[in-house]
Amino acid sequence: MITSTSNLQVKQLIQLQKKAKERNAQDVFVAEGPKMALEAPPERVVQVFVSESFCKKNPDFMGDNRPVTVLSDRVFENVSDTRTPQGVLCVIQQYHYGLEDLRGIIPHEVRDAHAPQSEIGGIIRRGQREEPLLIALENLQDPGNLGTIVRTAEGAGVTGILLGAGCVDLYNPKVIRATMGAVYRVPFYYTDDFQGALRILQGKGVRFFAAHLEGSIPYDEETYSGPSGFLIGNESQGLTRETAALADARIRIPMCGQVESLNAAVAASVLMYEANRQRRRALVC
Amino acid sequence: MITSTSNLQVKQLIQLQKKAKERNAQDVFVAEGPKMALEAPPERVVQVFVSESFCKKNPDFMGDNRPVTVLSDRVFENVSDTRTPQGVLCVIQQYHYGLEDLRGIIPHEVRDAHAPQSEIGGIIRRGQREEPLLIALENLQDPGNLGTIVRTAEGAGVTGILLGAGCVDLYNPKVIRATMGAVYRVPFYYTDDFQGALRILQGKGVRFFAAHLEGSIPYDEETYSGPSGFLIGNESQGLTRETAALADARIRIPMCGQVESLNAAVAASVLMYEANRQRRRALVC
Repeated sequence: MITSTSNLQVKQLIQLQKKAKERNAQDVFVAEGPKMALEAPPERVVQVFVSESFCKKNPDFMGDNRPVTVLSDRVFENVSDTRTPQGVLCVIQQYHYGLEDLRGIIPHEVRDAHAPQSEIGGIIRRGQREEPLLIALENLQDPGNLGTIVRTAEGAGVTGILLGAGCVDLYNPKVIRATMGAVYRVPFYYTDDFQGALRILQGKGVRFFAAHLEGSIPYDEETYSGPSGFLIGNESQGLTRETAALADARIRIPMCGQVESLNAAVAASVLMYEANRQRRRALVC
Repeated sequence: MITSTSNLQVKQLIQLQKKAKERNAQDVFVAEGPKMALEAPPERVVQVFVSESFCKKNPDFMGDNRPVTVLSDRVFENVSDTRTPQGVLCVIQQYHYGLEDLRGIIPHEVRDAHAPQSEIGGIIRRGQREEPLLIALENLQDPGNLGTIVRTAEGAGVTGILLGAGCVDLYNPKVIRATMGAVYRVPFYYTDDFQGALRILQGKGVRFFAAHLEGSIPYDEETYSGPSGFLIGNESQGLTRETAALADARIRIPMCGQVESLNAAVAASVLMYEANRQRRRALVC
């Protein structure tokens, strides 16, 4: 058991929690909590840390063939990113998707990792249609918002998430926690050239809808059954003018009262679930 | 200018930020940021505090007929609930709605406070139909979730929010901040007898839909054009069995992938906007 915060492994772990640079250099990220540890693809788990008291209560956690390191409760609290640590920390290998993975056309090994092989392929088994459904985020800053969007994206059947370089790091511990495990399953791709990436996807047939306060079409009057993507901007600034101009259509979420805008994760979720609703209806018809 | 954290006013302000008991005893709450201060109903503003540096940049903030107290930047940082304080803190009188206010049937003085009198009354002027649309929250714990729900509720045209006594305090500074001002405009009511209050509202014709993981009807296959309410439970436990049993119908939000549930604020938002969508369609027809 490690009982000192000056232990080298502990120091490294703290760096991984705090610094994107360190995470990228080591090509890993940290996920907290038993649920996140149990859902992690086993082949990606580099190391597992548990607190002393968690270990006592769950001696057989994660089976016996995984390297588990025990930290004293005090050390664990120091390393944890949460106020009330749950006693489990996992170091996990980062993902490396390509832009083409976001369209979900090619069944991807990651999506199949936990499911038996089947003729109909990974995408249909996840309950989605084959049509790409993307979320493209520009300068999204709040970790909770990004994590919540990833979580809802999986639920709504989004095939991939495009992130501009100005977005918060998806491997930030607060983002990881808010994804509730969806980070393991939804393909995502960061790009320095956000508009260039949008153009490439448009070239493949994806129509992008800009969620925009000045958008003239109520979001539920557009059709998202074809290859579609939603553009979501910064929490206070919205989309840049250049990105909004690239969109195939501008849409707005109607608002009553004096509300000026919705929370970015809420706006994204309302749009993703409208697409999900339309696609379910289309399947029924 | 107040330069000491041992100043009595400053001590009181810190108590108001931290303790629900103190807020209730004084019948006030604290709102942070210039936007929250400017949107506050003037007649409810008890006191305004600004930081020294904010004061220098905005000497005429809030006009000249409001009592503004200047705090040194260091003292302000001590009092603020945020990491990067915006330099404005408002002490505001609490609201006291009744259960009957939630249905939005009777135009309420609060809703009319900022609008000129008009024959059609407060509710229609806010762009809503007269039909009640409620959100009822049971044991909701996360301040960000509650604030986000209040914000989306105003946007979606919800007439009122019912909160069980087990919910987080709506006057918690983190809730207030996340409402982005909607707290000033959406009626809400706390009750020790959550199920009793639901029954009273049901007696007035409101149909309650329980968002439930075992709900059998996809949420978009129900109709919310009549007097309706959504029941939302605790973030990890969901609704209690007793409350779910009281519901007129159980609904679920379909989920792809391995997602077990959505974030509570997201789930509430998807439901509120489905009701909003149906009501807008009904108005067009």
